[in-house]
Amino acid sequence: MKFLHTADWHIGKELGAFSLLSEQWNAFQQVVAIAEDEAVDGIIIAGDLYDRGIPPLNAVEAFEQMARIMNLEHHWPIYAVSGNHDGAVRLGAGREWRETTAFFIHTTLAEAFEPVELPDMQIFMLPFLDPLDARIYYQMSDEESRDYTSIEAVMARIIPDLVAKFKPGKHHILVTHYNVIGTGNIGYELTSETNSQVGGLKGVPASLFADFDYVALGHIHLRQASPTDTIRYAGSPVKFNTKEAQAEKGVYIVEVGDTVTVKWRPIQPVKDLIVIKGTFSEITAPAFYEQYAREGANWFSISLTDFPDVRNARGILTTIYGDIVEVNYVGQNAQLGNVVQSELVDGTLSDQEIISHFYETVAEKPLSAEQVQLVEMMLTDIGRGV
Amino acid sequence: MKFLHTADWHIGKELGAFSLLSEQWNAFQQVVAIAEDEAVDGIIIAGDLYDRGIPPLNAVEAFEQMARIMNLEHHWPIYAVSGNHDGAVRLGAGREWRETTAFFIHTTLAEAFEPVELPDMQIFMLPFLDPLDARIYYQMSDEESRDYTSIEAVMARIIPDLVAKFKPGKHHILVTHYNVIGTGNIGYELTSETNSQVGGLKGVPASLFADFDYVALGHIHLRQASPTDTIRYAGSPVKFNTKEAQAEKGVYIVEVGDTVTVKWRPIQPVKDLIVIKGTFSEITAPAFYEQYAREGANWFSISLTDFPDVRNARGILTTIYGDIVEVNYVGQNAQLGNVVQSELVDGTLSDQEIISHFYETVAEKPLSAEQVQLVEMMLTDIGRGV
Repeated sequence: MKFLHTADWHIGKELGAFSLLSEQWNAFQQVVAIAEDEAVDGIIIAGDLYDRGIPPLNAVEAFEQMARIMNLEHHWPIYAVSGNHDGAVRLGAGREWRETTAFFIHTTLAEAFEPVELPDMQIFMLPFLDPLDARIYYQMSDEESRDYTSIEAVMARIIPDLVAKFKPGKHHILVTHYNVIGTGNIGYELTSETNSQVGGLKGVPASLFADFDYVALGHIHLRQASPTDTIRYAGSPVKFNTKEAQAEKGVYIVEVGDTVTVKWRPIQPVKDLIVIKGTFSEITAPAFYEQYAREGANWFSISLTDFPDVRNARGILTTIYGDIVEVNYVGQNAQLGNVVQSELVDGTLSDQEIISHFYETVAEKPLSAEQVQLVEMMLTDIGRGV
Repeated sequence: MKFLHTADWHIGKELGAFSLLSEQWNAFQQVVAIAEDEAVDGIIIAGDLYDRGIPPLNAVEAFEQMARIMNLEHHWPIYAVSGNHDGAVRLGAGREWRETTAFFIHTTLAEAFEPVELPDMQIFMLPFLDPLDARIYYQMSDEESRDYTSIEAVMARIIPDLVAKFKPGKHHILVTHYNVIGTGNIGYELTSETNSQVGGLKGVPASLFADFDYVALGHIHLRQASPTDTIRYAGSPVKFNTKEAQAEKGVYIVEVGDTVTVKWRPIQPVKDLIVIKGTFSEITAPAFYEQYAREGANWFSISLTDFPDVRNARGILTTIYGDIVEVNYVGQNAQLGNVVQSELVDGTLSDQEIISHFYETVAEKPLSAEQVQLVEMMLTDIGRGV
C-alpha cells in the first residue's frame, strides 16, 4: 500500500498581515499532482488541518473544496486526525457520512480504538488529546487521575491499548499529532532553534511506537525533526514563519509492505519567504535589493542590525521590497529592541513564542518547564474553541 | 409520499438564563416517535436548525446526534435548508457526503436549482438568502441590482426559475424559510401580537408559490401564521418566548399525491412556559402560586402590575417559583418601566424586539419600515457569522 503523508495544513493561517490561502492552494495542487503521479492508495493528513478551532468562512470553503477534489473526484481515501489547532467537535461534525466514501477523520480517543481495516493493514488514527480527555475515556478515579496529568503519561497508557488491537498478519500504521522525541534524527542535526517550537515540553518517546510499521506524525513543521526512519514528520507544505524559511517543504510517499520505503517529494512555493539581515543603509542599497524578485513575488522578513535614523523605516522598506511580513531589530542595543517589541507580534511567531519572548523581556529569565506546559495547555484550550 | 414537516429547532437557544437543550431533546424524541408511528418517507426541516451561525459545541454535538438517529439509524431521508439564524457555510460543510445517505441540506441559491428527484416528485430546497446572494448568482449588473434590493423582489425572480425546472407528471414540494404573507390564514386570526415577530417587514406573497403542491415553511414560530392550507409554517417544536406560551407546539404530517392532506401532531413540553400577571402581593400569595407545579417543573414569565415595595423582588419570586425566565413591569408608571428596562433583555425577546423596544423608549416613536428592514439585515449578517 502506498500513501501520501502530509500534515499541518493550517488552512486559514496568515503570515504577518497576509493571507496564505493562495499559497495553500498552490501547495494543495502540487499534493494532488504528486498523488496522481505516484498513484497512491490514500492520503494521510496528520492533524492541524485548520489553523484554529473556529476557522474563518473562506478557510472552511477552501478545505471543503480540497476534500471534494481528493475524495470525491480522485476517490483517494483520506486518513486524518484533528491536531491541537483544530476544533475537534466542529471538525468531526458529519464524520459518519464522510466515511461512506472512505474519508476518515478521527477527533476523539474512542475513535482511535476503531482502526480502518484494510485487507492487509490496520490504520489507527489518534487525534491530539488533552490528558483530561483520556482520564474521562478511561473513567479514572481522582486518585488514578493524578498519575495522568501529562501527555507523556497518557500516551504510555493509550499506545499499548492500541497495540492490543493489532490483528496478526497485518501491517499497522498510526496517524497522530504530538511532539515525539527519538534518540537520533534523520539527515539533519536538530538545533535548539529548530527545536524551540515545541517549547521546553518533554516529548513522547519514539520507543513507545516501536510496534507500528509506520507512524505518520504531524505537529512539528520541519521533517528534520522526525525521530526515526519510520516515525516521521512530513512537516507543513507551506512555510509559516522565518524559522521555516530555509527549509524545503514537501510530502512523504510511504510504501508499507513487508518492508517500508519512504520517499521525499518537494513542493515549490509560489512566493518564497526570504530572510534578510543587515544595516538599514546596506539593505536599502539597489545593488543589494535588486538581487531579489520583489513587488509581490516573495515575502520578506527583515532583520535590521542598526536602528535607522529615518522616520517610517518600515514604509521605506515596504516601498522597496513589497510584501514584508516582519521587521525585527537585532542590534546590540537592547533598549531599541524593547522599543520595537510590538513589531514582533505580527503573526509570524507562534503564540507560545510570543509569550515566551514577552516573559523573558519582563522577567529577565526564561519560562520554567512547568510554565511552558501551562502556556501550552491554555493555548490548546483557546485554539480548540473550548 | 408522506413527510414530517418541522422547522425552527434553534438548537443551542436559551430561554432567559436557561439552556433549552433538554427541552429540545424531549421534542426531538417525540418527533422520532411520530415519524415512526406515521411511517413517514422523509423529514423536512425548514431552516434555523441552529440558533446562531457559530453554535456552541454542545449544540453541534446535539444536532449531529439527532441527525445520526434520524438518518443513519432510522434511515429517513432529511430535506433541510439553512435559515436566517444558521451559518450557511458552516452548516453546509460536508453536504456532499451527507447526501450519500439521503441527508439533503441546501445552503446556497445554486443548490436550490438542483431538486431531489424522486420517481413521482421533485423536492426543491431554497435556503434563506440575502438579496446580495441572488445578485451574485444571477451576475447582475450594478444597474440591474438596483431592482433587487429586497427579499420580495429577489423571490419574484427566483421562484419562476424554480418552476421552470418542473418535470411534468411529478408533484412538486418546496422547502424554504421566509416571511410569507397570504390573503387569509388557517384557523386563527393573526393578531398584531403574533405577527409582530416579523417586524414591519413586507412578506413574500403566497401567490408566488401557487405552482407547488406543498410549501414547507420555516421562520415564523407559530403555525397559525400559515398563509394557506398548502403553504404552511410548522412552527418551532419548543416554546422560545412568552408570545409562544399559549401556543400548542407540534409538527405536520403531510401526504402529497394527487391530493394533499395535512395532519397536525402535537408535541408535549416537559416544562411548560407559564405567563403570570398580577400585583406583587397577589402572585406571592400561597393560594395563588400553589396552583402551579414549581421548583423546576415549569418556566415562569412574570409580569408585575405594580412596583413592589421590597428589595430583591426577583429573588423572592425565584424562591417561590423556581425557574423564572423574565420579570416584566407592566404598571402604568412609565418611569418605573424605564427603570427596569434591563430586566427585559434576558433572552426571551427576539433581538429585533429588543432593538425596537429600546428605540421606542429613546426616540418616543416606533422604527420606520426602512429601519426595521435595516435592523433585520444587520441581525441576519451577525447571526450568520459573516
